[in-house]
Amino acid sequence: MKRPTIIDIAREVGVSKAAVSYALNGRAGVSPQTRERILDVATAMGWRASSAARALSNDRAANVGIVLARSPEVLRTEPFFMQMLAGLEQTLSADGFSLQLALAADTGTELDTYRRWWAERRVDGVVLTDLRISDPRPELLRELGTPAVFFGTAGPMPGVPVLRADEDEAIRSAITHLAELGHRRIGHVQGPPDLQHTVRRADALRRAVGEAPGLSVHHAPGDYTEEGGVRATRRLLSAPNPPTAVIYDNDVMAVAAVVHAEELGVRVPADLSVLAWDDSMLCQVVRPAITAFAHSVVVDSATAARMLLELIETGSADDGELSPRTLVPRGSTATAPGN
Amino acid sequence: MKRPTIIDIAREVGVSKAAVSYALNGRAGVSPQTRERILDVATAMGWRASSAARALSNDRAANVGIVLARSPEVLRTEPFFMQMLAGLEQTLSADGFSLQLALAADTGTELDTYRRWWAERRVDGVVLTDLRISDPRPELLRELGTPAVFFGTAGPMPGVPVLRADEDEAIRSAITHLAELGHRRIGHVQGPPDLQHTVRRADALRRAVGEAPGLSVHHAPGDYTEEGGVRATRRLLSAPNPPTAVIYDNDVMAVAAVVHAEELGVRVPADLSVLAWDDSMLCQVVRPAITAFAHSVVVDSATAARMLLELIETGSADDGELSPRTLVPRGSTATAPGN
Repeated sequence: MKRPTIIDIAREVGVSKAAVSYALNGRAGVSPQTRERILDVATAMGWRASSAARALSNDRAANVGIVLARSPEVLRTEPFFMQMLAGLEQTLSADGFSLQLALAADTGTELDTYRRWWAERRVDGVVLTDLRISDPRPELLRELGTPAVFFGTAGPMPGVPVLRADEDEAIRSAITHLAELGHRRIGHVQGPPDLQHTVRRADALRRAVGEAPGLSVHHAPGDYTEEGGVRATRRLLSAPNPPTAVIYDNDVMAVAAVVHAEELGVRVPADLSVLAWDDSMLCQVVRPAITAFAHSVVVDSATAARMLLELIETGSADDGELSPRTLVPRGSTATAPGN
Repeated sequence: MKRPTIIDIAREVGVSKAAVSYALNGRAGVSPQTRERILDVATAMGWRASSAARALSNDRAANVGIVLARSPEVLRTEPFFMQMLAGLEQTLSADGFSLQLALAADTGTELDTYRRWWAERRVDGVVLTDLRISDPRPELLRELGTPAVFFGTAGPMPGVPVLRADEDEAIRSAITHLAELGHRRIGHVQGPPDLQHTVRRADALRRAVGEAPGLSVHHAPGDYTEEGGVRATRRLLSAPNPPTAVIYDNDVMAVAAVVHAEELGVRVPADLSVLAWDDSMLCQVVRPAITAFAHSVVVDSATAARMLLELIETGSADDGELSPRTLVPRGSTATAPGN
């Protein structure tokens, strides 16, 4: 059951190593009879072209890479990435591709990983997420010539197929929901400030609030962690005219606000309504359960994988759209105080 | 910035492709002066031996594989595997190794993945977890000759280094905790019946309960999902003399019992104390928060990665121990009713 090498096959057939190599690679230099004998013996011995040999011969690693650029702390609590890996892997494996995984604590490490993966011909392409403000990754990957698909961007990107996220409609549905409950001052606890979607959501919120007379929005920076969520909420609540509802850019920060409501001096939802961007089991098991935007990360990741496979195969792929988010109202949003 | 090939370097230096290959691989067939010129140009052009070429020359892929053999449903909710991937990847990448990931819905698919990875020389070794009753994996990997480390076993395993889990002490501390609170009838909602650690924990519970006069333990099969947790709890509670405390084999099932307590007809902890095997953010954010066993999956995974690297490098590695679990008492365990 040891994997047979070309040498093993040559010994078994009684020919030279070169003859085996010619036969297995379909090249001239060996008679048709010998070729057939070699192929029979190779098959019987369980021989398969190694991925290394195939990568050398047709420049294909049959491998797609993804770098998770979050702290282990955030990865441990946020269910998002495990869903993404599951969606990618299922689609890739159906096409004979594997998934290569790396973690990166900072952008420098992430860029080095792409350079190394590409130089070592370890991957045929990569999936990127969390587009940053002045993000060096698309340019590096264009320079390297590495096929890449970007998951969740506002618009098209030169030379890189993207999965666009249209969040305006989701944000508008949240504002409508809160306005109907009588909320006028809306807080927004944001994700990390260097992420493009942090800025994009703040813009979308301002646009949606601008369409609703009498409403205002108040932003506070967060970092996707529990501590950051509590800190930002405290900042919003310490204003002279604090918001009566807060939208959080992820589930972990919203859950932290609900769990720490007492020390923040509010009751949820009597004094403060809470809304989370990413739905997850965390939102569902806290009390009150949290009104959240549901979306299918597994489906969207599968789409990203299919786009990347097409790009690798044909050299081009069309842009796609992330599946729409739908608001799931739960106990954490209620009538504004005084209404 | 395109990755240079041997042909590019040959053209640049003005020598044959064979000469470049000899020079880069340190073989005879090219003069020392030419070799030096070729190496200089190759370095200037950013050439690096591809992982494929290195794998062919020294039989090393610099890659470690892990197959996650749970349903996407369980992977989505259980934080365990993301912590495991983070711990493995950090240790592997420090040694220049990458992590290859696959999902498998059943044992057949998992075995096929190991066969394919090894036949294609895609990995140098694998990390296994969740030892099953009559598990075919250790034997297959021994037959293939694939270096493997087993994460979380009861005892040693012929030919495969293991990270042993000594759960007797943790179980005993849980039983002591519950006995001190006056509980006599202890329920146990188990993990999937085909996992060795499901059986092992049931045995450890029986031993611990046997040491405490007047106590009894009652098992109910579960499957690590919310639905399974609720179903098994209902079964335990429908007995003529239902348990007053239940130990759950993972966090998700314990959380499900707390969240669905009302429909199960109990108050937690007044009527029923709840204890979870794996601590996580889920246990911390529900109310009451769940008494749980804390352990460091990240640290243990790093240990597994180091053992596997040693095995790949030297051909052998000593067995290790998982870090001990400590009981973190929270609001979900309290005095037994009638005490």
